Amino acid sequence: MLKVALIGGTGAVGQEFVMALNKHPWFELTQIASSERSAGKKYKEALRDPSTGILRWHNKEQIPEYIQDMIISKVENIEPKKFDLIFTALESSDAQVIEPSFAQTVPVISTAAAFRYENDVPILIPGVNDEHARLLDIQRKNRGWKGFIAPLPNCTTTGLAITLKPIMDKFGIKNVFMTSMQALSGAGRSPGVIALDIMDNIIPYIPKEEEKVQIETKKILGDLNAHSIIPSPVKVSCTCTRVPVSDGHTETVFVETARPSEPEKVKEEMLKFSKSITIKKLPTAPQDYIVVHDDPTRPQPRVDREINDGMTTVVGRLRKDTVFDNGVKYVLLSHNEKMGSAKGAVLLAELLKEKSII
Amino acid sequence: MLKVALIGGTGAVGQEFVMALNKHPWFELTQIASSERSAGKKYKEALRDPSTGILRWHNKEQIPEYIQDMIISKVENIEPKKFDLIFTALESSDAQVIEPSFAQTVPVISTAAAFRYENDVPILIPGVNDEHARLLDIQRKNRGWKGFIAPLPNCTTTGLAITLKPIMDKFGIKNVFMTSMQALSGAGRSPGVIALDIMDNIIPYIPKEEEKVQIETKKILGDLNAHSIIPSPVKVSCTCTRVPVSDGHTETVFVETARPSEPEKVKEEMLKFSKSITIKKLPTAPQDYIVVHDDPTRPQPRVDREINDGMTTVVGRLRKDTVFDNGVKYVLLSHNEKMGSAKGAVLLAELLKEKSII
Amino acid sequence: MLKVALIGGTGAVGQEFVMALNKHPWFELTQIASSERSAGKKYKEALRDPSTGILRWHNKEQIPEYIQDMIISKVENIEPKKFDLIFTALESSDAQVIEPSFAQTVPVISTAAAFRYENDVPILIPGVNDEHARLLDIQRKNRGWKGFIAPLPNCTTTGLAITLKPIMDKFGIKNVFMTSMQALSGAGRSPGVIALDIMDNIIPYIPKEEEKVQIETKKILGDLNAHSIIPSPVKVSCTCTRVPVSDGHTETVFVETARPSEPEKVKEEMLKFSKSITIKKLPTAPQDYIVVHDDPTRPQPRVDREINDGMTTVVGRLRKDTVFDNGVKYVLLSHNEKMGSAKGAVLLAELLKEKSII
Amino acid sequence: MLKVALIGGTGAVGQEFVMALNKHPWFELTQIASSERSAGKKYKEALRDPSTGILRWHNKEQIPEYIQDMIISKVENIEPKKFDLIFTALESSDAQVIEPSFAQTVPVISTAAAFRYENDVPILIPGVNDEHARLLDIQRKNRGWKGFIAPLPNCTTTGLAITLKPIMDKFGIKNVFMTSMQALSGAGRSPGVIALDIMDNIIPYIPKEEEKVQIETKKILGDLNAHSIIPSPVKVSCTCTRVPVSDGHTETVFVETARPSEPEKVKEEMLKFSKSITIKKLPTAPQDYIVVHDDPTRPQPRVDREINDGMTTVVGRLRKDTVFDNGVKYVLLSHNEKMGSAKGAVLLAELLKEKSII
Repeated sequence: MLKVALIGGTGAVGQEFVMALNKHPWFELTQIASSERSAGKKYKEALRDPSTGILRWHNKEQIPEYIQDMIISKVENIEPKKFDLIFTALESSDAQVIEPSFAQTVPVISTAAAFRYENDVPILIPGVNDEHARLLDIQRKNRGWKGFIAPLPNCTTTGLAITLKPIMDKFGIKNVFMTSMQALSGAGRSPGVIALDIMDNIIPYIPKEEEKVQIETKKILGDLNAHSIIPSPVKVSCTCTRVPVSDGHTETVFVETARPSEPEKVKEEMLKFSKSITIKKLPTAPQDYIVVHDDPTRPQPRVDREINDGMTTVVGRLRKDTVFDNGVKYVLLSHNEKMGSAKGAVLLAELLKEKSII
Repeated sequence: MLKVALIGGTGAVGQEFVMALNKHPWFELTQIASSERSAGKKYKEALRDPSTGILRWHNKEQIPEYIQDMIISKVENIEPKKFDLIFTALESSDAQVIEPSFAQTVPVISTAAAFRYENDVPILIPGVNDEHARLLDIQRKNRGWKGFIAPLPNCTTTGLAITLKPIMDKFGIKNVFMTSMQALSGAGRSPGVIALDIMDNIIPYIPKEEEKVQIETKKILGDLNAHSIIPSPVKVSCTCTRVPVSDGHTETVFVETARPSEPEKVKEEMLKFSKSITIKKLPTAPQDYIVVHDDPTRPQPRVDREINDGMTTVVGRLRKDTVFDNGVKYVLLSHNEKMGSAKGAVLLAELLKEKSII
Repeated sequence: MLKVALIGGTGAVGQEFVMALNKHPWFELTQIASSERSAGKKYKEALRDPSTGILRWHNKEQIPEYIQDMIISKVENIEPKKFDLIFTALESSDAQVIEPSFAQTVPVISTAAAFRYENDVPILIPGVNDEHARLLDIQRKNRGWKGFIAPLPNCTTTGLAITLKPIMDKFGIKNVFMTSMQALSGAGRSPGVIALDIMDNIIPYIPKEEEKVQIETKKILGDLNAHSIIPSPVKVSCTCTRVPVSDGHTETVFVETARPSEPEKVKEEMLKFSKSITIKKLPTAPQDYIVVHDDPTRPQPRVDREINDGMTTVVGRLRKDTVFDNGVKYVLLSHNEKMGSAKGAVLLAELLKEKSII
Repeated sequence: MLKVALIGGTGAVGQEFVMALNKHPWFELTQIASSERSAGKKYKEALRDPSTGILRWHNKEQIPEYIQDMIISKVENIEPKKFDLIFTALESSDAQVIEPSFAQTVPVISTAAAFRYENDVPILIPGVNDEHARLLDIQRKNRGWKGFIAPLPNCTTTGLAITLKPIMDKFGIKNVFMTSMQALSGAGRSPGVIALDIMDNIIPYIPKEEEKVQIETKKILGDLNAHSIIPSPVKVSCTCTRVPVSDGHTETVFVETARPSEPEKVKEEMLKFSKSITIKKLPTAPQDYIVVHDDPTRPQPRVDREINDGMTTVVGRLRKDTVFDNGVKYVLLSHNEKMGSAKGAVLLAELLKEKSII
């Protein structure tokens, strides 16, 4: 068993890490750190809102036994050399400072944006761009670190990149237009979205989100050369919105392909990709990497987000586009806190261990 | 005062007609017809759900006095020659039969899709394509009618066409991608969307909606020749979804223009168009035809839908597109039951009266 | 294995029956009947809304394999002698006619109100008034039936009666005031509550609900004599409301006890009752019959309704009442479609089988 | 015109003050103070959430012109002698310190709980216990102040006390059981209720709320003697919950009266009380103080909260109680930010001015 620590364990993403690591066959979570305010408290008590007394535990399952009474440490009391791996669920500004200090000693898998855009840092989605993992060795050498920082993409990028990958490989992609309808849990939990702001409403703006998705998608779909990743020439344009849905990001996608791409063929490629996925045997991998619905009323976030415990990207409404000569449009659903975040990070750790990079 | 009848007055759209005609300076609603089930009841009582007893009155204002006790007629008891104008708020299949029977005698302004796609029928948005009204004369002659059928567009088309018009006139438009997040009231009220289907959820499909928007937008932006309208060559691709918002359709729009179109210039054109709008003086016209927000968190349906009592199209997030060499993207909000439906129909009636077509 | 049929299997309650009977160790569901409209269709297809195409499957789990392709029969094609037991999930007016016709031949367990208030019909909650099951023999004789009709209470009565039972047994009860905040799924699904009626709203009235709860609670807590049940003298007053919550009825309860009843003692009695419950070993019985929270922010429907798959009644905020000399107040949560309906009916069937009444 | 200042003007209640004082015929709001964080900003800008950029303006009307660019002061820069009256919308702990410092010089009307329970402080609801205003003179003398502190009740008490008053006067009241379903806006706005905590959920607990309502109701309905108020002997027991409704507190009430009280007679008394209300002529007073619906589906918060701009208490489901020999039960709706808070405070100021106490 590898010993792992979790930094930032009380927020929405941190809670999903706690779930994903419950009874994990390879990883044992032995220490958890969080903000100053929570340090010294039992995990269970740290989730309680100080003013209303409400316990902010988001998952449908109860808080796992193993973590309930674990005492939360201060970040500065985490000794990296005691761990084989550190997961972080931090705000970007904190990650900027904390992650390198750990990465000198031990691998860090991060859900924060802080290092995603650096030259020697890949943005990894297991099953999509595993070969980019080689950049982690370059990073180690570059920086003289024993460990490394391996960030996941933004939760809104994940489903998009996963569904574009098989299209790109078979048909080539020129242009992508995407509109997201993002869930509340993607905004974090302290405080996250205020009920009065979102009830019977849509917020048509999420700061920095669109730029992240546009850049990350190109990097994930890009090619690794000797020193860095050459971004894919695919062009991406996004509008990201917040909607009154608890979990699961829905995205409408319009794709111009380089070559003719009939919807039936695209479906075939997606399913073939899903079946032959490299990471299939990993403990956290879903039974289906992509599901494609023929039922035009799917995917729906409430109905589809829990499929394979949130690790499946669900596609529907796959049809010919009416503007592009070659192109399709579709709707996708990706669980922003599972495959799009904490559980995806654990899957990435499994991949890196299997590749002996951890 | 012109005498008007309203067919289909108890549904969501019908209720907005009742509001829009309350104390109207030109039109007097003197008879109202509805389904078999409602005929013979007082208007107020016909709104009550027979199983739960809930009064389904949607507007924030109370039911106007003038209509509360009006007895609902059967459709076959409406004598068209008694009226100067008939408004209809019918399902398409009913409209198919009922509207022509009235149009032989009297002008019919319709919110149904039944006749929108016929050659001698314009789809009119006051302020956008007023010159297409001339086709109504051709229709009269073609069909040997004293009246005519003048349909409004689908409520999802309205805001899109209104915002594209000034862009097209100044910069030309090649391609449009649109994703809608449509309000519950757009689905009608009998029964409309079931709460358990939409709570904490999105439905990514609205039957026939996308085709309607794609075809109607081209027709509205097209050119009238001697006999019919040549659709605009602009290409449109839509994905239409239903979201848990009561009123107000939000749409994300990506526009490729024929010529360079800086966001600041586009804003300028929209505001210029809004100011110089032909219909400004009509009783139901809004003070602002288009409002453009610089605040990136706008438009929001709950916050912006009631501006100018739902007759204003609200635009925000106007910015350069990142795929097109020439293009912009933006978010719009249009009130689906006001400008996009009943109140828009009353505005159209005013326009046609002013033009002496009614 | 006992062969069972299900009448009314496509609605919300019917769907929960389908789930509760999936891989059941004692009961095999071999035929399913539903309305005229659904007959002849595959189960899966019958769930689809004809106008929107939305599949109305409410449960978080997928539709079980065993039922997906089962063809739905007409009610008149169900031959009762082929079954050991029939479950019904019908509107009361249909139950009035259909249930007796089956009960002549075979036991019928019903979620409908039609027969609840007849003299020789008990209203059974497994674990609360099992001894009332003896009235089923009297009913058989009275009516010359081979079978019988055994109705469950209204879903709003269930949690109330379960929590009152241990209080009554230990402290006696004089008066009860209850206010319910009832979930949408309690209103059925065809069409059920309209989204526009309940979004950002409360409906303070549910037809007939309060009378049902008031009468049923007295009957359930009553004493069986030779021929019928003498209702308990406890007085009950209710106000029942509908709130925008998908599943789980929340109830606030104020109880005047006959003897002093400290909250700590009441908690002790509830837990003792929960532990010693007679039905513990039955396949569908929950691990905990009642859970009592000290955390004042519980129970919450979204957080607590799935505990033990909806078969546990969850109590919180148990405290001294401020009006009564002897009395407590508390909040309870009961899953209206699980313990309060279909799954409770399956539990009742198990109890009656164990008692050799089926 | 009296010059008034507002302390705590950016929160939900503060915003309603801003609306209530817009174009007020007697009061001119000339200075506004708020938290350290907002001081120095324009009012309009101070409403913007620093992390999401969302403008938190709650009212359906736009922000009034007069206040948009008013610069927010620090509380310590408010000079009380420049004002005839100060309104406060503060957290209780801040009110404890700030309100007495102003009250030495000038009348303070407060929405906070800090002083409500002191002997020489009345809790005033205009129209219910106007005669308690005399206690303000005693307070002035007691404390050697030129001004005084006049607090409103908790927003949950207001509707309850208003509806109990005519019942008490005619029939006498022994016991009251009340369950509240409280709106989100009652929890304030910084941050207020988190969307993920309340979507598809109920929180069955609001800290300190029940004690406040129980004590305040007795004080408001009590008798003023020479030095203080003797609480009414009526006993009150409450359970207060938070529901997913934006505005408007719904309460179910069960009342045991001292003398026989037929529902029809109670309705009559409520309407008589409403008609003969003392404060009718004040600028902010509603046309109807109480409305009583016969329609059993009313009051509904979304439908009824805006009646008379939120100043009317709406009653429905008035019926005989089934436990009490003498008693009724009903449901009430009171707008928590209008009559129950800021606008109620302005109405109180008008009353005190008319009585020449200000």
